[in-house]
Amino acid sequence: MLSAPGCQQRRQALWAALPEPRPNLLIITDPLHLNYLANFWVCPFSFRSQNAAAALLLSAAGRCRLVADNLLEPFAAHADVDETITPVWYDGIHSPEERHGVFVEAIISAARSILRSGKAWAAEAGHLPADVARHFGAPPATDLGPVRSRLRGTKREDELELLRRSAQASAAGLHAARKGLRPGMSELDLFHLVQQAVQEFLGEPTPIYGDFVSGPRTAAGGGGPTRRFIEAGDLVLVDFSPVVRGYRADVCTTWRLGDDFNSEQQRLYRACQEAMAAGIGALAPGQRARAVHQAMAQAFGKLGLADFFPHHAGHGIGLSHPEAPFFTPASDDDLAPGMVVTLEPGLYLPGRFGLRFEHNFLITADGYVRLTHH
Amino acid sequence: MLSAPGCQQRRQALWAALPEPRPNLLIITDPLHLNYLANFWVCPFSFRSQNAAAALLLSAAGRCRLVADNLLEPFAAHADVDETITPVWYDGIHSPEERHGVFVEAIISAARSILRSGKAWAAEAGHLPADVARHFGAPPATDLGPVRSRLRGTKREDELELLRRSAQASAAGLHAARKGLRPGMSELDLFHLVQQAVQEFLGEPTPIYGDFVSGPRTAAGGGGPTRRFIEAGDLVLVDFSPVVRGYRADVCTTWRLGDDFNSEQQRLYRACQEAMAAGIGALAPGQRARAVHQAMAQAFGKLGLADFFPHHAGHGIGLSHPEAPFFTPASDDDLAPGMVVTLEPGLYLPGRFGLRFEHNFLITADGYVRLTHH
Repeated sequence: MLSAPGCQQRRQALWAALPEPRPNLLIITDPLHLNYLANFWVCPFSFRSQNAAAALLLSAAGRCRLVADNLLEPFAAHADVDETITPVWYDGIHSPEERHGVFVEAIISAARSILRSGKAWAAEAGHLPADVARHFGAPPATDLGPVRSRLRGTKREDELELLRRSAQASAAGLHAARKGLRPGMSELDLFHLVQQAVQEFLGEPTPIYGDFVSGPRTAAGGGGPTRRFIEAGDLVLVDFSPVVRGYRADVCTTWRLGDDFNSEQQRLYRACQEAMAAGIGALAPGQRARAVHQAMAQAFGKLGLADFFPHHAGHGIGLSHPEAPFFTPASDDDLAPGMVVTLEPGLYLPGRFGLRFEHNFLITADGYVRLTHH
Repeated sequence: MLSAPGCQQRRQALWAALPEPRPNLLIITDPLHLNYLANFWVCPFSFRSQNAAAALLLSAAGRCRLVADNLLEPFAAHADVDETITPVWYDGIHSPEERHGVFVEAIISAARSILRSGKAWAAEAGHLPADVARHFGAPPATDLGPVRSRLRGTKREDELELLRRSAQASAAGLHAARKGLRPGMSELDLFHLVQQAVQEFLGEPTPIYGDFVSGPRTAAGGGGPTRRFIEAGDLVLVDFSPVVRGYRADVCTTWRLGDDFNSEQQRLYRACQEAMAAGIGALAPGQRARAVHQAMAQAFGKLGLADFFPHHAGHGIGLSHPEAPFFTPASDDDLAPGMVVTLEPGLYLPGRFGLRFEHNFLITADGYVRLTHH
């Protein structure tokens, strides 16, 4: 989980990034940021996660309050906050009211007491309930959305720890898939191998999403697992992310079942490896993200394969997917130490087959560290 | 998936339930209701589901528009709508703007054209973005929240089909767990058996959540699976819900590993069966939900076990969990044909062990139909 010092540093960084004059109150309602700023994380494998809503009220005086109703108490217990406000939604005795109304009333009541000392507040436009905004009348001073997007790119040590755990779990999943892959197995069977190995590695149910395609389905580069049976000679492309307390690595590889790549596949495989090497060679703090894309696209171009590389060369990873920096031809992003990124060169022959390979990297002060080792 | 006629009927029912004068526009932004009203469902096993947001604009003239950005196109393709508005968030070429801003701009632009013919609109307070509300100035005429909560209780045939699929998948999961349960297996191993059997039955990755506890952990009645090893003689309590296109059954049973219940457990087991029978006997359209709770509580009371039954006797199931009708002592809910409910008698001896058993029922015009058969 995220650490208390990490959460405190992120809250301080958020305040520091706000333009003057600073508001008296920040209302945080994006579930990702309740985790990011206060280690409030709702396990999606509990009924308690269904329709869950919570808010963080950060006062300029430094106080951090969590509003989360009584069904969320087991998660609130782990949050790094100064105070938890627990409105009762469902008491097991009465028919509960609309859950949202109970939640909003608690936010308004807590926010009102903070705003006594000054009226300016800021919030996340994308997640602020309209009735909270309406109650406080004036539009918020600042939309926190762009501010925290910028902050989120640079990971702190506790976030890196979760990303490393996700990378290790991914490796366990890839290993199990590689080892268990058999002719006659379905894509869904393969997914089960990965799912089970990842959860076994982490010791708990874990969301995993991604692409599990085989044979001609690899030509599209993506799609969920189906009942399609994998036959000897088929290509198998797996690309997945285990989500560890909100943070996800992103790995991909392509195998040929029961055989080495044929000479055409071998050629495309080598091209992907060359593109990966070119992309890695361009990873450096201060580098433009578009230059990383260009390095990879040029590697494919030199081999006459540019037309078969239709997607981005990679992107940032962390609490969401995809996120900045974007490795695209006209990207405006720059690399900075603490960013975690994925590179994913792939080639697809329409109607025939496709291959993709993907690794994750931490940008450091003097280069990069590779986080995945499959 | 939900059917086009079912979606159309639900949209009509929503309009019909609104008080006069009716608004010109309904803005629907709760993800559950984009599914409920238009079969727009975002698969959680795709990276496309990360931070997804979409809206449904329903005009009084009967037109249904979906606003969903370009990453959501594969899901929008299956929606039952008259028009899809697809703002481009990420084009693979440029660094994208804030995703929420792109989404809100598209909602505002589409809503503005509808509101030309009259200014009244309604929305879901719990899910309406504050910046959309702010743009249109006046507070919405009606908060749709309570209206659609009322409507959602009564299921239509396409919804029942998904609930039956979830019940069947649950049975497959229970069967696999019962068959595969072995001493030395961990709770997490047991979870894997259930997860795999459910997904194999349904043919696709499927969210499953619930309780997987063994030995003394059963005394608390719930909790996720851990690495705890299950030993011969342990009680094993599994309670889970597979979520099929948003709809979930809810099943529970308790086994003793490698043996029959001992005489004390047998007595509690029989008490739970009697309470279940009492609850089932009270299921009828028009019945008060509190009377169902009372019937079950009295069954335990007669046996002197009332103190060991600490929770509700059950609740409604469908798109969320828990939802109305609530089987609690002071419930205000009444049963009506088309409702799907779960009954879950359980007894827990503090610090020692607990048992729970759970079945699902459809309330019909002349009684009930049982949906689960484990």
